[in-house]
Amino acid sequence: MNRSFEILDVTLRDGSHAMRHSFTEKQVEETARGLDKAGVSYFEVSHGDGLGGSSLQYGFSKVNELKLIEAASSVCSRAKVSVLLIPGIGIKDDLQDAVKAGAKMVRVATHVTEADVAAQHINLGRELGLKTVGFLMMAHMASTAKIVEQAKLFESYGAEIIYVTDSAGYMLPNEVTERIKALKENVSCEIGFHGHNNLSMAMANTIAAVEAGASYIDGSLRALGAGSGNTQTEVMVGVFERLGYNTGINLYDILDVANDVVAPFMQRPQEITGSSLILGYSGVYSSFLLHTQSAAQKFNVDERDILVELGKMKAIGGQEDLIFDVAQRLALNV
Amino acid sequence: MNRSFEILDVTLRDGSHAMRHSFTEKQVEETARGLDKAGVSYFEVSHGDGLGGSSLQYGFSKVNELKLIEAASSVCSRAKVSVLLIPGIGIKDDLQDAVKAGAKMVRVATHVTEADVAAQHINLGRELGLKTVGFLMMAHMASTAKIVEQAKLFESYGAEIIYVTDSAGYMLPNEVTERIKALKENVSCEIGFHGHNNLSMAMANTIAAVEAGASYIDGSLRALGAGSGNTQTEVMVGVFERLGYNTGINLYDILDVANDVVAPFMQRPQEITGSSLILGYSGVYSSFLLHTQSAAQKFNVDERDILVELGKMKAIGGQEDLIFDVAQRLALNV
Repeated sequence: MNRSFEILDVTLRDGSHAMRHSFTEKQVEETARGLDKAGVSYFEVSHGDGLGGSSLQYGFSKVNELKLIEAASSVCSRAKVSVLLIPGIGIKDDLQDAVKAGAKMVRVATHVTEADVAAQHINLGRELGLKTVGFLMMAHMASTAKIVEQAKLFESYGAEIIYVTDSAGYMLPNEVTERIKALKENVSCEIGFHGHNNLSMAMANTIAAVEAGASYIDGSLRALGAGSGNTQTEVMVGVFERLGYNTGINLYDILDVANDVVAPFMQRPQEITGSSLILGYSGVYSSFLLHTQSAAQKFNVDERDILVELGKMKAIGGQEDLIFDVAQRLALNV
Repeated sequence: MNRSFEILDVTLRDGSHAMRHSFTEKQVEETARGLDKAGVSYFEVSHGDGLGGSSLQYGFSKVNELKLIEAASSVCSRAKVSVLLIPGIGIKDDLQDAVKAGAKMVRVATHVTEADVAAQHINLGRELGLKTVGFLMMAHMASTAKIVEQAKLFESYGAEIIYVTDSAGYMLPNEVTERIKALKENVSCEIGFHGHNNLSMAMANTIAAVEAGASYIDGSLRALGAGSGNTQTEVMVGVFERLGYNTGINLYDILDVANDVVAPFMQRPQEITGSSLILGYSGVYSSFLLHTQSAAQKFNVDERDILVELGKMKAIGGQEDLIFDVAQRLALNV
């Protein structure tokens, strides 16, 4: 079968959450080299919360992300580096710096109902000659009609690809199919899907996305990412091969970088634990997990109760402060 | 929604593989108590390869499985203990002893084309007053017609439930749907599904099974089992709740036994590593994994190459000797 999609690897960006933003240049360089060798076309390097994310609110990076982007770019013969930018966290200057460091693609991420904050960043991306992507986070929280409306905004700003992003690892395949199909029918951009494995459905959701017409799908090596992690890149390669697709990626080579480079530096395995399951179950932003565990410990409350409460409140990315408020409230039983 | 299926937990049987058959009475007792409290109706306790599996070929059990069955039964107020029996490994005496120790269900497991070896064991199960199950392993290796034929044999012997068992973690949802539907149409027994997560598809396959009419589905806590482990019991509870099914199991209680009892005694996390992925990719019996790793080390060859070769040879359970033969052959490059 002809190549119908690109696998975009996010180990070095979504994985930053799981690493508590402690990536070193050496780790990034070796991972980048392995991805490039295996045949990956694009991979992402940034703080977990995107360019400029290094802060008290989101966690400080051990190494400046521009150095990491540079380290990654410098070892690639064909793979291109993407960066994530969440307007409000990252600013235009950050993007200009990232391009100097070697970035070739920008994914501008907004909450699923807030694409309108992304116009100037998409524009700038175009001016800088980047491949530009609109990245709709927490896509489970909006109706299909709403997602189409927001995608049209991204399209009008000049985005070439629009992502459906299951930030909470909440979605099930029929929900993915419905959203991707609606986008395919209503916008002319290419469509992407980014999944999390909190309900053990990331791989099935990714298959559903491709079958519905997605041409960009995200994965991470050993699933390294927020919550229970992402769709596992090397598993995607094996499964899509079995399904008869040409992924352009060599299975043994991608396994080598996953197991020989990434696995040794992981701080913990990407299992589905009680808390990451509750993230998916309640529809809570996956990058809330480690903050919630800190808050649970500080206030001596059940972290699952914090997550269930955040789900009820429909908390979204950027509202990390709420985590501690909820924990405190539960501790005081008010 | 009314309860339409039972979740049968196999932590204390399939998990025996991942524990290298080292379960202690205390581990079994605490896990059993947790499963019973959470509302699980059936759970399985035996050597990973079933009654009588403790041997040089399959690995010796640290504690006699009859003691483990007794320990599990003794703490249950409502949950019932199942045992696995593979004819040829286990014998009739083993089943009689298991019943004395408290077993209430027997699952007689055969390769998917060999149900005919199970007649006397199913008969004995009926005589002993057990719930009897025919367990068709490596179900991906047979056509739907063949599976129906074999299921009819099990039905004729008196089995009340027939399982489609994805021992290699190879199947994809459409393949599960096709098999379960065919069985629902052609036999009057209840139908079950047992999945492995080598391709990260166990949960999706399990949903497909239920939607196609399966009324027994297997899971294990923290996915503890052969290969990359089983469908994760506590995730099943969360996902099926989200889908509107009544599982009869309390989510927090099942999370507690998974995380507070099982996680601490696990020897390693149930990740999808290179080798377990290749199991699923090549369609190799999941319990071959640890043997293959030993053989790879002994002969200094790539364990993935051994698994790919075993897949090509269509090796099945009981042919564990082949693993070392293949490793030796690869080492000698013949």
